[in-house]
Amino acid sequence: MSNLKSPILTDLYELTMMYVWFLSGTINNQSCFDLFFRSCPFQGEYIIAAGIDDALLFLRDARFSKEDIAYIRSLHIFDDAFLAWLSDWRFDGSVHAVDEGTVVFPGGPVFRVRGPLGSCQLVETALLNCINFSSLIATKAARICMIAGFDAVMEFGARRAQGPDGALSASRAAYIGGCMGTSNMEAGKMFGIPVKGTHAHSYVMSYPSELESFRRYAEVFPNATILLVDTYDTIRSGMVHAIKVGHEMKKQGNTLAGVRLDSGDLLSLSKEARRMLDEAGLFETKIVASGDLDEYSIYALKEQGAPIDIYGVGTRLVTGHESPAIAGVYKMSAIEHTTGTYEMRMKVTDHTDKTSLPGIKQVYRSFDTQGMMAGDCIELESAGFDTPGSVPLLTPALYGGAIVRPERALPDIRKYVIASVQSIPADVVRLMHPSRYPVSIGPALTETRKKMMHELSG
Amino acid sequence: MSNLKSPILTDLYELTMMYVWFLSGTINNQSCFDLFFRSCPFQGEYIIAAGIDDALLFLRDARFSKEDIAYIRSLHIFDDAFLAWLSDWRFDGSVHAVDEGTVVFPGGPVFRVRGPLGSCQLVETALLNCINFSSLIATKAARICMIAGFDAVMEFGARRAQGPDGALSASRAAYIGGCMGTSNMEAGKMFGIPVKGTHAHSYVMSYPSELESFRRYAEVFPNATILLVDTYDTIRSGMVHAIKVGHEMKKQGNTLAGVRLDSGDLLSLSKEARRMLDEAGLFETKIVASGDLDEYSIYALKEQGAPIDIYGVGTRLVTGHESPAIAGVYKMSAIEHTTGTYEMRMKVTDHTDKTSLPGIKQVYRSFDTQGMMAGDCIELESAGFDTPGSVPLLTPALYGGAIVRPERALPDIRKYVIASVQSIPADVVRLMHPSRYPVSIGPALTETRKKMMHELSG
Repeated sequence: MSNLKSPILTDLYELTMMYVWFLSGTINNQSCFDLFFRSCPFQGEYIIAAGIDDALLFLRDARFSKEDIAYIRSLHIFDDAFLAWLSDWRFDGSVHAVDEGTVVFPGGPVFRVRGPLGSCQLVETALLNCINFSSLIATKAARICMIAGFDAVMEFGARRAQGPDGALSASRAAYIGGCMGTSNMEAGKMFGIPVKGTHAHSYVMSYPSELESFRRYAEVFPNATILLVDTYDTIRSGMVHAIKVGHEMKKQGNTLAGVRLDSGDLLSLSKEARRMLDEAGLFETKIVASGDLDEYSIYALKEQGAPIDIYGVGTRLVTGHESPAIAGVYKMSAIEHTTGTYEMRMKVTDHTDKTSLPGIKQVYRSFDTQGMMAGDCIELESAGFDTPGSVPLLTPALYGGAIVRPERALPDIRKYVIASVQSIPADVVRLMHPSRYPVSIGPALTETRKKMMHELSG
Repeated sequence: MSNLKSPILTDLYELTMMYVWFLSGTINNQSCFDLFFRSCPFQGEYIIAAGIDDALLFLRDARFSKEDIAYIRSLHIFDDAFLAWLSDWRFDGSVHAVDEGTVVFPGGPVFRVRGPLGSCQLVETALLNCINFSSLIATKAARICMIAGFDAVMEFGARRAQGPDGALSASRAAYIGGCMGTSNMEAGKMFGIPVKGTHAHSYVMSYPSELESFRRYAEVFPNATILLVDTYDTIRSGMVHAIKVGHEMKKQGNTLAGVRLDSGDLLSLSKEARRMLDEAGLFETKIVASGDLDEYSIYALKEQGAPIDIYGVGTRLVTGHESPAIAGVYKMSAIEHTTGTYEMRMKVTDHTDKTSLPGIKQVYRSFDTQGMMAGDCIELESAGFDTPGSVPLLTPALYGGAIVRPERALPDIRKYVIASVQSIPADVVRLMHPSRYPVSIGPALTETRKKMMHELSG
């Protein structure tokens, strides 16, 4: 399901540009646009491409509503003919894209849109919004899960997410990226993601005593009790009471599932909590930790031997924290000339790192004999690519108004991501000072680009 | 209009806590919760509270749908009686809150919820989601506009915002915080925010020549042409062609509204562009700049005399960038004891900075004779406050299922924010190393807190 419904989620300038083309009679000229990432977030060297499936659903279903058209009319910028054109508009181009959850690298297209100029331009904002944010969060989740373990991370960021839909998109992307579940009920309902959660400080505070609050919870949830132990004093109060309740549960044949630490020094507290639990014979009781965690703090905790079984991650996952936006862009790469011929396009500008690659391109991925990723090559599709065993990453995704690839369930996408991350070379995937993955430009594209640079500077 | 519709936007643990209370017969005990901020984002010393109006609409209208209940039932956690209770649930508490757009400081409640324990707990996630994000972006916008000028900042972050609703909420909050308009058509439609925008690089690239693309645009929009000049070479190509078109427009009695710089060194490029425009007699043509701008880069540009008239701000505004989440929390401050008496509550924990203030509180703001904010005092409401001229910030907002304050239009809220920011003391509002605004704790609250700390540690 996509949260994007109406093409009104667009920037005004998409419409003003389209209007000029409409009046010039060029709005239906064939064009090609690439959505690609300029760089990797989080000082990393890879990106999990996500939001692809939502973007396809959007392109399939997007229509302007009567209210949308009435609003656009009220701006007094456009004439009736153009408003009528918008009313009838549906996306009439085609898409090649990577699969949802594919590991990608900067430079190569991940979502390639071909079709009438106006249609391709109109959807820019929505495509970027959709793919940028989901890719950001899926990437962050993969980074965190790679360190913590793919079955050890719970996402619970709804309260700090950027708007209600930010929370929903974030929960979906975090799950794809490797998290085992979410606290977000709406995400559970919408996407079938496993939901988890126990209680907050206010629950403890609602009782005259911490012990009473723990006992009551264990009575109601004999098979799923995780007690939050830091409302008053983690070790002297919370852990003492949790162990008391753990013993009472044991006598009745049940197990205290866990204790949760949510503040203080998680290293020393988890060690002391584990020691107390083991001393009390509560070996099966797990330790859950939360509190502004990310891949770096989890790495440090694990390095120092913190006996934490499950990590709850919120703010720093669902906002992207140190890189709250990903550098995804959408650039024209080819256009039908008014004379009917197809011309390649590139942006050169003053900044070389903002230059784009011309032409209708494909990304070919090679693997080594162990199945590890060995390098990508970006090449003009028309030139082909003859390295045996290499795989084209862009496959037909939308054609003639229909999605032309099988739908995959979220758990399958999650498994695909986990397997893919494990096939990134170790030096590229590592947390600290990762190496750059080899991405080359094929000979035909190199030649074309050189020629165009020469012409543009001439 | 609120984007929050269903109370299903909640964390599972709100429901598991409620279920224990439901089975214990305490779910309707009266309680009081405070939503407040622990600290200011962006290394600043103030916050613009926003999302308040949306939160009130949510509390007024939120109901579980049949699908929501069916989903919750499918988790096999809760019994039928509790599911029936949820089906009938509507928010039955009352709210005191600050006005949308009020300048607030850490510690004091901005949204105070009283009512049955279960109801107050259920809405935690949605209230935090709503108020945290909007406050973050309104604060960032105010910071940027304070430096750039309140009529000089355009928001165009939709493509980098965190999900489609993140974009919508961000555009609304950015406008409240002082921006003059947005590029986001959906935000324009939903909230009536002025929409602006001209064209992108792809527009230029769609023509055989930059000059032709500029000419065509100016023909269609003779009164609203801002030309993006950095597709190929800003000065040698873009500015030369823009000036040519500017002259042609002049001959026909029109004015080239502006040129837009979107890459490169904005300081030197804007100076050179201004020089070229002035030399060509195009004195009225404005310079618009964009490209990863925020309050710091705008400050630097202004300090160094960059002749930029309008700033387009995207990513760094709509994501909060260096502080992508605000530290808003929701804590129980009082609860009806099972015996019928009302008891104050506070969280003490191991971290003193995570301690909360007990009791049903009010925030009183004092002003100096020039109308500048002079200090806030947080005090138990029952104790009153007798400083003449001080104003209580929390006023009745929702009671008996109805919103009990007049609705204000967005432009009025924006004006209120601009006036409020201008009444923050200069040393508190400044960008670099701001002073902390004086927030005191009243004598009755101080006494109560001391007593409770003593009891809890005993």
